[in-house]
Amino acid sequence: MEYKDILTAAKYSTEKMQKINLFETRNFFCDIYCLEPGQEQKVHAHHTEDKIYLVLEGSGEFIVDDESIELGENKTVFAPAGSNHGVRNRSESRLRLLVFMTPNPNFSS
Amino acid sequence: MEYKDILTAAKYSTEKMQKINLFETRNFFCDIYCLEPGQEQKVHAHHTEDKIYLVLEGSGEFIVDDESIELGENKTVFAPAGSNHGVRNRSESRLRLLVFMTPNPNFSS
Repeated sequence: MEYKDILTAAKYSTEKMQKINLFETRNFFCDIYCLEPGQEQKVHAHHTEDKIYLVLEGSGEFIVDDESIELGENKTVFAPAGSNHGVRNRSESRLRLLVFMTPNPNFSS
Repeated sequence: MEYKDILTAAKYSTEKMQKINLFETRNFFCDIYCLEPGQEQKVHAHHTEDKIYLVLEGSGEFIVDDESIELGENKTVFAPAGSNHGVRNRSESRLRLLVFMTPNPNFSS
């Protein structure tokens, strides 16, 4: 059986936001994102993929289209296919996220 | 922007396991499952859908095909398409899970 501990899956770099893959199939990927203070996932869009962020640790500014909001632990954010979305760590602490994206763009033709 | 708090999304019933939907599209659904002690999601299979469980609170016995394992908070379990999978709350405390399933079987033709 495949299972993972989301607390021990963490890797930070002063260079840029880090992504750690937990599970992946054609249908989805499930990653941990680790952002040092000041780091971000720049606003971008996927034509056909939906994304969910869950804040595991810290606080982040989430952007979806024309809205932005600062959200802390235990908050989930939905970035639907076609939306311009991203996340910035404007805090002075580390930000760790669980991220689901579906379908998996790495398998799209 | 659509966002939810996974701590406040909880609903228990002595009758059976409760499901609370957080987000849903054609690509996926994202639910909270709430299991009182003794309750279960019976072992079942989906031909084309992958499922991820994340233990938010408590501890559960997860079954995937011929394996079963007791897992506590912050553990994620992957039940791939075609696998026989389920979860039982054999503990004396409540069990709360975050569940992703993809693609969404409610939209399959």
